[in-house]
Amino acid sequence: MHTFPEQAEAVIALAKFCSDKGWLPATSGNLSVKAQAEPLRVAITRSGADKQRLVPADILLIDEDMQVMGDTAYKPSAETSVHIELYRKFNCGSIVHVHTVFNNLMSELYASEGQIEISGHELLKALGHWDEHARIAIPIVPNHADLDELGRAVADAAQAEVPAVLVRAHGIYAWGDTPDAARRHLEAVEFLCEYLYRLRLIGGMSDVRK
Amino acid sequence: MHTFPEQAEAVIALAKFCSDKGWLPATSGNLSVKAQAEPLRVAITRSGADKQRLVPADILLIDEDMQVMGDTAYKPSAETSVHIELYRKFNCGSIVHVHTVFNNLMSELYASEGQIEISGHELLKALGHWDEHARIAIPIVPNHADLDELGRAVADAAQAEVPAVLVRAHGIYAWGDTPDAARRHLEAVEFLCEYLYRLRLIGGMSDVRK
Amino acid sequence: MHTFPEQAEAVIALAKFCSDKGWLPATSGNLSVKAQAEPLRVAITRSGADKQRLVPADILLIDEDMQVMGDTAYKPSAETSVHIELYRKFNCGSIVHVHTVFNNLMSELYASEGQIEISGHELLKALGHWDEHARIAIPIVPNHADLDELGRAVADAAQAEVPAVLVRAHGIYAWGDTPDAARRHLEAVEFLCEYLYRLRLIGGMSDVRK
Amino acid sequence: MHTFPEQAEAVIALAKFCSDKGWLPATSGNLSVKAQAEPLRVAITRSGADKQRLVPADILLIDEDMQVMGDTAYKPSAETSVHIELYRKFNCGSIVHVHTVFNNLMSELYASEGQIEISGHELLKALGHWDEHARIAIPIVPNHADLDELGRAVADAAQAEVPAVLVRAHGIYAWGDTPDAARRHLEAVEFLCEYLYRLRLIGGMSDVRK
Repeated sequence: MHTFPEQAEAVIALAKFCSDKGWLPATSGNLSVKAQAEPLRVAITRSGADKQRLVPADILLIDEDMQVMGDTAYKPSAETSVHIELYRKFNCGSIVHVHTVFNNLMSELYASEGQIEISGHELLKALGHWDEHARIAIPIVPNHADLDELGRAVADAAQAEVPAVLVRAHGIYAWGDTPDAARRHLEAVEFLCEYLYRLRLIGGMSDVRK
Repeated sequence: MHTFPEQAEAVIALAKFCSDKGWLPATSGNLSVKAQAEPLRVAITRSGADKQRLVPADILLIDEDMQVMGDTAYKPSAETSVHIELYRKFNCGSIVHVHTVFNNLMSELYASEGQIEISGHELLKALGHWDEHARIAIPIVPNHADLDELGRAVADAAQAEVPAVLVRAHGIYAWGDTPDAARRHLEAVEFLCEYLYRLRLIGGMSDVRK
Repeated sequence: MHTFPEQAEAVIALAKFCSDKGWLPATSGNLSVKAQAEPLRVAITRSGADKQRLVPADILLIDEDMQVMGDTAYKPSAETSVHIELYRKFNCGSIVHVHTVFNNLMSELYASEGQIEISGHELLKALGHWDEHARIAIPIVPNHADLDELGRAVADAAQAEVPAVLVRAHGIYAWGDTPDAARRHLEAVEFLCEYLYRLRLIGGMSDVRK
Repeated sequence: MHTFPEQAEAVIALAKFCSDKGWLPATSGNLSVKAQAEPLRVAITRSGADKQRLVPADILLIDEDMQVMGDTAYKPSAETSVHIELYRKFNCGSIVHVHTVFNNLMSELYASEGQIEISGHELLKALGHWDEHARIAIPIVPNHADLDELGRAVADAAQAEVPAVLVRAHGIYAWGDTPDAARRHLEAVEFLCEYLYRLRLIGGMSDVRK
């Protein structure tokens, strides 16, 4: 993916996958692919686009100050600040941000703990944890109205060993070295959010697994 | 969308989206686009059509007295009265009415309150509320058998700042300036209905958020 | 639909719709269209076919004694007996039999009552009940292993005013004058089964509506 | 399916079906078709492939020692050990291994019993049990980190009369004489897992059916 058109196509393919799952309701969410590391350039969805019907013109090239490069009337998502902070911290290759019912539920139910602890589930492998006794914690941050503040909060909470952060009653940011890796991490956390919600519904995580 | 064929295609596209989601079961629901403001003309689905297989002939042009214009044997939905009342009140551009399990559940669970209060969720932005402390109320009206009465009840309850009304054990009306806006509002409320039902199921909205 | 190839296509289209919904798991279910009233001839799915991949050869023409007409190595479903009994009783035009999680749940939860009573929901209109105070009862019959006995039990329980019967921990039979009507009745009952299960889950039908 | 290209296509078709259902999240799962009985040869998905986008090169031919035959840089899934053990025990024709929320929930909820007992449900027929009073038990094994150990545990627990084994908080192995039979068994067990979870959620299997 060395050219911007190729990177834009990668963003559109990610958005198509997430949109088909119903993870980008009401034009919400934003997705990006790193176009260049030094200086940082990012291919990212524009603000307000319906993610089911993206065309190349809906993908903007921005610099590390969130300035749009090239000739377009579109604006990048206000949440681009979160993407920039995560690229700076991890130098990852792609970031996805979606809203789902189950990640919203988990972010709300565990808001006071500030994280969701998970152990003993096979899909931890998809997040890079192969040790049988692995225990991970997915951070949850408040949904700051100030988006620069949100960007810093997500980046501060983000840990290299767990490629996802939940924002309370809002959604998830997940990332990876490639668009496929970002998507794999997202899929794994979404599965776990639904699983853990339904497990707690029938008897509580504390009873069954912790 | 200046011609009726274009408006009819916009209605069909809205119906296709909602039908693919499973929101128009058993030929239920009706969808419309304003064709002209003065005097009011509306492009609306005919009564009884399967919304997954609409063709242009299934979209009727009606005037403000619900009279069909042009040569057709089809009748407009009896619930066209609700559309007319909403166009009169808001001069909006498009209205969608669908039936879903989760909006039905919420309309039933909060029937005695007459509304669902929501605050502290990101998707309020998709309904036009960007203030961090925004609190909205989606009205719930009884399911009047008399459809003129239903039209007046929905229009009376409808507020400009919240583009949706629930009808108890029946469905939702959502509207917007454009078909895309109506659909975005619908998607946001459907997400919130499922989220709030599942949140209450595991511990109650009153415990967790209010 | 005057020719058998047309009737077979109608059966395949019904099966495609139900299969896309996930209502025909594990090659279960069977669907039919009346080919001729006197003497009775029925176009019906063969036993064991994957309903997602039906071809015309998978649709058999049978007489009222369940004998296959024409040259084929395939056998009709053993549950063809239920279809024959229902065609005899109602002279309807089409019958669908599917297995879903929610109709199974309702058939089990209300097995001792022998029926599910429903009132006060808009989708009763899709079942032909337009009166605001309509109250219907969907019968539930035991899942007889003897399929002739099952056919008689379903037909005995079936009422003209409610075009569906549930079989306990098994599935649903729904019918109508046309394939579209049978499908509309099926969709309405499936919606109601999911709705009523989820309503009971959060507080009970008896608390909320009865 | 006498040639390897045909067998590879059968694996890809199985994977497409399961992936469309959402049963292969985050590149998880593995699927195989027996290519030859003596000596054993198996067509199986490579490690790490996205199952929604498989191409023939993603299907590997392996021998009974899990050695890849032919010229490829890809590695078979580490869980190939489980497939080999099951082919050895049953000489079946195809094996599917998927991860779903509902089979994970059931494997966790019944972990201490070591099995899920099921009776009185129509879909037992799809698993080969036609007797009205049939009672089956689907075994649950611990999720051993050592995959040779997992292979032996699954094969030890597996019974000829019930073509599926659950692995705790991991997923399911299902098999059959053909790819269609393996898929039918998988579909039936997935349906039953969702049904039994939802039945227990509303009142407990012990109250309602046992």
